[in-house]
Amino acid sequence: MDAVKIGLLGFGTVGRGVYRVLENHRRKIIKSCGADIHMEKVLVRDVEKYRNVFPNISDLFTNDPYQIINDPEIAIVVEVMGGVRPTFDYVIDAMKNGKSVVTANKDMIAERGEELFETQRNCGVDLFFEASVGGAIPIVKALKESLAGDEIREIVAIINGTTNYILSKMSLCSADYEETLREAQQNGYAEADPTSDVEGYDAARKLAILTSIAFNSRITFKDVYVEGISKITKIDIRYAREFNGVIKLLAIGKRTERGIEVRVHPTIIPSSHPLAAVNDVFNAVFVRSNAAGELMFYGRGAGGLPTASAVVGNIVEAVNNFLHRDRGRIGCTCYKREFLLPMEEIVTKYYIRLLVDDKPGVLASVAGAFGRNSVSIESVIQKRSMGEVAEVVIVTHPAKEKDLQNTVSLLKTLPVVRQIGNVIRVEGEF
Amino acid sequence: MDAVKIGLLGFGTVGRGVYRVLENHRRKIIKSCGADIHMEKVLVRDVEKYRNVFPNISDLFTNDPYQIINDPEIAIVVEVMGGVRPTFDYVIDAMKNGKSVVTANKDMIAERGEELFETQRNCGVDLFFEASVGGAIPIVKALKESLAGDEIREIVAIINGTTNYILSKMSLCSADYEETLREAQQNGYAEADPTSDVEGYDAARKLAILTSIAFNSRITFKDVYVEGISKITKIDIRYAREFNGVIKLLAIGKRTERGIEVRVHPTIIPSSHPLAAVNDVFNAVFVRSNAAGELMFYGRGAGGLPTASAVVGNIVEAVNNFLHRDRGRIGCTCYKREFLLPMEEIVTKYYIRLLVDDKPGVLASVAGAFGRNSVSIESVIQKRSMGEVAEVVIVTHPAKEKDLQNTVSLLKTLPVVRQIGNVIRVEGEF
Repeated sequence: MDAVKIGLLGFGTVGRGVYRVLENHRRKIIKSCGADIHMEKVLVRDVEKYRNVFPNISDLFTNDPYQIINDPEIAIVVEVMGGVRPTFDYVIDAMKNGKSVVTANKDMIAERGEELFETQRNCGVDLFFEASVGGAIPIVKALKESLAGDEIREIVAIINGTTNYILSKMSLCSADYEETLREAQQNGYAEADPTSDVEGYDAARKLAILTSIAFNSRITFKDVYVEGISKITKIDIRYAREFNGVIKLLAIGKRTERGIEVRVHPTIIPSSHPLAAVNDVFNAVFVRSNAAGELMFYGRGAGGLPTASAVVGNIVEAVNNFLHRDRGRIGCTCYKREFLLPMEEIVTKYYIRLLVDDKPGVLASVAGAFGRNSVSIESVIQKRSMGEVAEVVIVTHPAKEKDLQNTVSLLKTLPVVRQIGNVIRVEGEF
Repeated sequence: MDAVKIGLLGFGTVGRGVYRVLENHRRKIIKSCGADIHMEKVLVRDVEKYRNVFPNISDLFTNDPYQIINDPEIAIVVEVMGGVRPTFDYVIDAMKNGKSVVTANKDMIAERGEELFETQRNCGVDLFFEASVGGAIPIVKALKESLAGDEIREIVAIINGTTNYILSKMSLCSADYEETLREAQQNGYAEADPTSDVEGYDAARKLAILTSIAFNSRITFKDVYVEGISKITKIDIRYAREFNGVIKLLAIGKRTERGIEVRVHPTIIPSSHPLAAVNDVFNAVFVRSNAAGELMFYGRGAGGLPTASAVVGNIVEAVNNFLHRDRGRIGCTCYKREFLLPMEEIVTKYYIRLLVDDKPGVLASVAGAFGRNSVSIESVIQKRSMGEVAEVVIVTHPAKEKDLQNTVSLLKTLPVVRQIGNVIRVEGEF
C-alpha cells in the first residue's frame, strides 16, 4: 500500500491532537484515502525535551524547519505552530517546494491570505485552513463548496469561545465581568493576557476569513470594526433579558445594497434566535443565503482534539488530491472587490442605558437629543430610581450609526444626563 | 469558455428551484467551476403543459427520459423527480452511459443505495445526494469529507420538518395532535396523506442514509426501528416541560460496544440540548465524534430553493470533477458490516404515563411491576386525581427496552391500572 509522508510544524496541543487522531483512526483514514499517512518529521523548538517526553517517536523530532520543507519525500506540510513570523515564510517555502499545506493559523490567513493564495495558485498545490475558524466546525468547506452555487447574504457568528464563556457565565450567575474573567482565567478558558479575545481581535480575524470566502472579496483584519465585551455589565444582561434578549459577542458580515458590513461587537439578539442558545465555549456560525435560507453550524471552536479533527479532515483531502494528481483546484475565491460600508453608515437598532437626573422634564430633554439626530425611539423605560438619579433604558428603531453617535455626543452635553451607562447594538426581530 | 451540459429529470418545486438557482447565481457558479453550466433538456410528463407555462425555455422539455440519458453531450444528470421506480433505472442507465448523477431522492438512496454505488464505482462517475437528507444542510459532505479522519459515535437528528412543525405548534399552543395536523395540512406543511411523515418513515429513510455514512456500514430503511408521533398528547408535552424536557421526533444512530442502534421515535430531551431549540419546519443534525466532540448542523430541511441550493452545490462539484477528469473519487464508504443491536436490547430511560385507581397501595403495586422486570424507577409523580382515577407519571433509570416492554405488559394485567397513557423514551442528562 502507498504511504503518503507528511511533516508537522509544531507539536503543541493541536499538533499532538493531530498525531493522536491520525493514530487512533488509522484504519478509517486508510479507507478514506486509499493510502496510509506516514508522519515523517515534527518540528519542535527543543528536540531533547520532546525526545524525553515522547520516547517512542523520538526520531521524528527536528528543530530545523527546512528538514521538513526541503524533504522531497514529504508531500504535505501541516502547520500548527501559529504566529505570522516566521510561519508565513515556512508555508510559502513549502508550497514553492511543491508541497500542499494544511494550516490552523487564523492570524496568518487573515493577515497574509492574499500572498499565500497567490503562491498556492502559482505552485499548483493545496492550501487548506478549515481549523483556522471555528475549530471542529466545517464552516470553510460549507461556504466554499456546499454553497458554491448559492449567494450568501449574511454571516452572524459566535467565533470566540472565551468571550462566549464569559458572557454565558455572567448571564447564568448574574456575575460581573471582572469576576467572571478571573474565573475563566483560573479555569484555562481565558489567557493571562486576555486582550485578543475580550477586545474582539480574535473574532475579527476569523470574521475576515469567513467574509472573504462568503462575499468573494478580500477582507482583512483592519477592515473589521471591533468592539470587545469589557464594558458589558450584569445590569445590561438583566435588562436585555427583560425584553427577551441575550447579549453575545457577534461577528457580523452582511451584504447590503450599499456595501459589505463587517463588524464585531456585543449585540443584543432575541432569545429565540438559534445563536442565543449557544453557550459556554461553543462556537456557532449562522449563515443566510439566497437559496438555502438560514443555516447554522455549531461546535467546539477550540481545543486540541476538535481542532485536530478539522486539520485531519483537510489532511485526508490533501492526500486524496495528491494521489489523484488533482491539487490546487480549490483556491482563493476572492474574485471581486466589494465596497466596504464605513461603520458610521451601518443601520441597526440600539440599546442605550443612561443615568439621568430624576426630575420632571428629563425624559423630554433626552428624547429631544434623539429626535434632533433623526434617531427614532422604540421604547423608553425608567428602570430604577436611585435617589436623585434614575436609570433609563432606551431602545431605538433602526438608525444610522453616525446619527446614533451624534446622539450620544449630544446626550453627554446635556446637564440632566449624569452618565452614559452603555450603548449596545441590537439585531433581529423581537 | 467551456459549457458543461446537464439534463434535469423532473421539473417540480425542486427542479424549478435548481433552474432558478443556476440562472440567478450564474456568475458565481462560473467562477466556482471555471465553466458555464448549460441546461440542455428537462424531463416532464406533459410537455405541452410545461411549454405553455414556461414559454421561454419551451424547447428544453421532453417526455422521453432517454433523450437525456442517451444524449452524449450531457455530462451530468440531475434527478429531482423522486420515487424509486422508474427513477432507479434511469439513474443506473445514466451512470452506465458515463454520466455523473446528482439526486435529491432519499427513497432511492435508502432503498437501493448498495446497487447504485456499485454501479457508480464500476462506471467511474460521481453520484452525489446531499439534498436527500436535511434539505439545504450540508450534512452528507460534512460526514463524508470533513469528518473523514474522525470517528463518529452518535447521530441525533430532527430530519422531518412536518413532525417538528406539529410538535413545535402543539408545544407552543397547548394544542392537540389531530387539530395541529389539520392546521399543518391547511398550511401546506403536511401532506393530505401524512403517514410517511407522522409515522416516522421519512425520518427513518434519512437516518438510514446518515448512519450508513457515519458508521461505514450499510443500513437500510428496514433496519431502523420506527415509531411516529400520532400518540403524543398535549398532556405529555406539558408533563415533559415540568421536568425541563421537550418532545421531539428524533432519529438516533449510536455506535455502542454492543452494536449499532438505529431508531426513530418521539423522545424527551432536556430543554438545554441544542436540538430542543430547533422549531417549526427546521431540521438539525447533532453529531458526536471522538475528536471533534459535539457538532450540530441546522437549516431548512425541505422546500424548493433550500433543496435546490444543495443540489446545485453538488452540480458544481460534479462539473469540477468532470472538467478535472477526477470523477468517482468519493463513493460508497460502507466497508464494514457492523452488528445492528436489536431494538429490545437498547438501553435508555423511559417516561410512562398511567391511569390508575386512586386508592392506597396502588403505587406499591405499580412499582412492583417495574421491580420484577429489573427496571429501576427514578421518580414517580402523581399528577392529577380525577375522582376514582389518578394520573401517574413514572420516569425510569436507564433500562433495557425488553425489560421495559415486559413491565408495560405486566402493568396492563394489573387490576389497578386502568390505562397506559403513553410510553416515551428519554435521552440526555436532565
